[in-house]
Amino acid sequence: MGSPPSAFERAAPRLREILGDRLSTVTAVLKHHGRDESWHPAHPPAAVAFPVSTEEVVAVVRCCGEARLPLVPFGAGTSVEGHVLPPEGALSLDMSQMNRVLAIRPEDLDATVEAGVTRHQLNRLLADQGMFFAVDPGAEATLGGMAATRASGTTAVRYGTMRDTVIALRVVLADGQVIDTGRRVRKSSTGYDLTRLFVGSEGTLGVITEVTVRVFGLPESMSAAVVSFASIEQAVSTAMETIQSGIPVARIELLDTTMVQAVNRYAGSEHAEQPTLFLEFHGSAAAVAEQSEEVGQIAAVHGAGDFRWTAAATARQELWHARHHAYYAALALRPGSRAWSTDVCVPLSRLVECIAATHRDLESSFLPAPLVGHVGDGNFHCIILFDPENPGERAEAERLNRRLVSRALDMEGTCSGEHGVGLGKRQFLQQEHGPALLLMRRLKQNLDPQGLFNPGKLI
Amino acid sequence: MGSPPSAFERAAPRLREILGDRLSTVTAVLKHHGRDESWHPAHPPAAVAFPVSTEEVVAVVRCCGEARLPLVPFGAGTSVEGHVLPPEGALSLDMSQMNRVLAIRPEDLDATVEAGVTRHQLNRLLADQGMFFAVDPGAEATLGGMAATRASGTTAVRYGTMRDTVIALRVVLADGQVIDTGRRVRKSSTGYDLTRLFVGSEGTLGVITEVTVRVFGLPESMSAAVVSFASIEQAVSTAMETIQSGIPVARIELLDTTMVQAVNRYAGSEHAEQPTLFLEFHGSAAAVAEQSEEVGQIAAVHGAGDFRWTAAATARQELWHARHHAYYAALALRPGSRAWSTDVCVPLSRLVECIAATHRDLESSFLPAPLVGHVGDGNFHCIILFDPENPGERAEAERLNRRLVSRALDMEGTCSGEHGVGLGKRQFLQQEHGPALLLMRRLKQNLDPQGLFNPGKLI
Repeated sequence: MGSPPSAFERAAPRLREILGDRLSTVTAVLKHHGRDESWHPAHPPAAVAFPVSTEEVVAVVRCCGEARLPLVPFGAGTSVEGHVLPPEGALSLDMSQMNRVLAIRPEDLDATVEAGVTRHQLNRLLADQGMFFAVDPGAEATLGGMAATRASGTTAVRYGTMRDTVIALRVVLADGQVIDTGRRVRKSSTGYDLTRLFVGSEGTLGVITEVTVRVFGLPESMSAAVVSFASIEQAVSTAMETIQSGIPVARIELLDTTMVQAVNRYAGSEHAEQPTLFLEFHGSAAAVAEQSEEVGQIAAVHGAGDFRWTAAATARQELWHARHHAYYAALALRPGSRAWSTDVCVPLSRLVECIAATHRDLESSFLPAPLVGHVGDGNFHCIILFDPENPGERAEAERLNRRLVSRALDMEGTCSGEHGVGLGKRQFLQQEHGPALLLMRRLKQNLDPQGLFNPGKLI
Repeated sequence: MGSPPSAFERAAPRLREILGDRLSTVTAVLKHHGRDESWHPAHPPAAVAFPVSTEEVVAVVRCCGEARLPLVPFGAGTSVEGHVLPPEGALSLDMSQMNRVLAIRPEDLDATVEAGVTRHQLNRLLADQGMFFAVDPGAEATLGGMAATRASGTTAVRYGTMRDTVIALRVVLADGQVIDTGRRVRKSSTGYDLTRLFVGSEGTLGVITEVTVRVFGLPESMSAAVVSFASIEQAVSTAMETIQSGIPVARIELLDTTMVQAVNRYAGSEHAEQPTLFLEFHGSAAAVAEQSEEVGQIAAVHGAGDFRWTAAATARQELWHARHHAYYAALALRPGSRAWSTDVCVPLSRLVECIAATHRDLESSFLPAPLVGHVGDGNFHCIILFDPENPGERAEAERLNRRLVSRALDMEGTCSGEHGVGLGKRQFLQQEHGPALLLMRRLKQNLDPQGLFNPGKLI
């Protein structure tokens, strides 16, 4: 007698009926869906489903429910916390073929897309109409994935995170019911905020199939600047005072010396190898001039060197391209290593102290760990470069991360500003949320009693 | 034999132990807690509790749970949808003695207050430090009440609603557990968004005892303007294009002719009795000048009369004082009547059409109903003046409201932009939310299985 059929084997005939050859068990496909950008160990799913419509997602979810086959939504695989890594025997639900832009509404400054649409894809269409989708995590993520992890990035300081940007979602629940979480209006007070409940739920409460987001008119004028400082404290103080003064900078990004070196080497740039702020200003020509003048004054008080302007569009794009590739630039500092990206966020008043203490930790560690930060939000990353197979390096990476999270939580901060919990941050949730974690668990149990959706993540 | 003891009679001895003379059954007190600003019939509670700490709220909630005594949180009683009206035999939980401002943190631009703190109270303290709490519904509401109804008002177009403004809440759950819904950071991706789950939950999921909110630095410059138009369509088009152009107006409020007449009569002002926009601009002196110039150009295209500026602080305050008293100004048009304030919100692209059609309805009705709107958000109110005891008037008010809600829902709008559901909007939720309403009911059942918190409201 053979072993009893697995959950996937029970579900497979029906899944093939629903999806035809859009159900794949090809080794390369499984392998691709068993990993993400994180250091967490890869593990292939039993199969990968490529639905093309909400109706197909409903059919797949129902079938998985009957077979008790766990499923893991997969967007672009750019998670750095193991969100899309399947548990043993699970189905990976790849949303990339649900990639239609359903509506762009310039008069309402919103757009509705299927969950697999990526942000560059949407932005190319929006640009033709003088608009842009503002949330910019760097990676070419899908909007479904970004909603699921409550992503943000370099522009959140001005335009908000996915929490602020998502207007409504279409979601398939565990029983196959399809809901729209809200109406396409700028505000509403009619009931529980289901939109925000699913934004950041990391695929554990339902499958997001459509996303309606707020978009913005392209600013009349944009300019970027680079300014460096003798110390990291001076750079962070400049960022903090800029925000406290209410100056609506569009981006204000910190790179420590190691990070600038990594970027210079990776992108062939020649930035001064000192703690540095990359800045961007959006608005009317007059507003941009006024904002940059004000920040310049604050920076000068903190001993900054000259502002180096990159107002030309190409130079500006090169700057942010370099910033967006900081992760890969960091990895290239130590070929063959993996990156463990920390992600704490603290109240602005504690940021200088938090970054200074963290920087002392990093300087005394034997692992390289360039630091980069969305400092206008109090959020920064140390990209710890290590070999997960080397127990000593792994222990050191864990130690650095644990010290940092503990420091941030002591400062009323959070263990993750934007990457999410996934696998990597579960251990800190009790300390961060206390009794509120029990309520999160109750919500999970209530919405997904069978534990069908992305089991083992977040909660 | 007498009738069995009521829930309140069962709970009363323990409630007196907890609260002493802060448990009241004085007739005047009961009467005050049995009504709000709405036309819904008043109904006194069995008693009123005045807790002074989260610990006391916990004790009261536990006692109510044991006695199955429903409880209704009460802030300032400024609801216009019957939120605080107690069901038969319930306990009113008056939060007004929990009125301590716990922390103001200028460096983080946030503040933490007990739920009974009112917005003027907070703003007086903030002003001393050059800051302000931006959400402005007009009424002198408590921050707990504003969080519970996801309130907004005249400044939401620039500064957001309570959804955007609340950073974290302290909440007492049905089992007496106290949770903090989030950390005091500008962003976080660690788990379900419990803060947003309670913002707008109208006292049905838990009792909010503390509120941490975002505050803003007082703008360097503020100026206000009044501009009138020959038609309401021109006024609304001006507002719509202003928002679509990305001009960050701080307020942009529509008053129809009847409303201007009411305001003039009530406040002794002399505004032209035409459809009118009240505007406010915040920013640097240069930014304010630039914004108002841009809006002036848009208004001119739509046939506006001259901008009448009220840059002096007192004139500006008088203007907004008049706007804030629009509700009472409307009531004074027809002494003895009650006000039924509609509250739809539609996508901006549909606003001209929605307001124009609604205005035709109002002009053909025998009930006076001045119209006033937060038109930058797509949200407006018709203040229908009627006698609830007169069946013909009541039927007409209901008819007007039902036509308007139906029109808004057909335009992808919502039946309530900011007042909440309470008693008055429950009938429309199925049409607005469809299957998502079932999920809201499941959440209510999960968080409050006994139906202890504000039963009969919202869900």
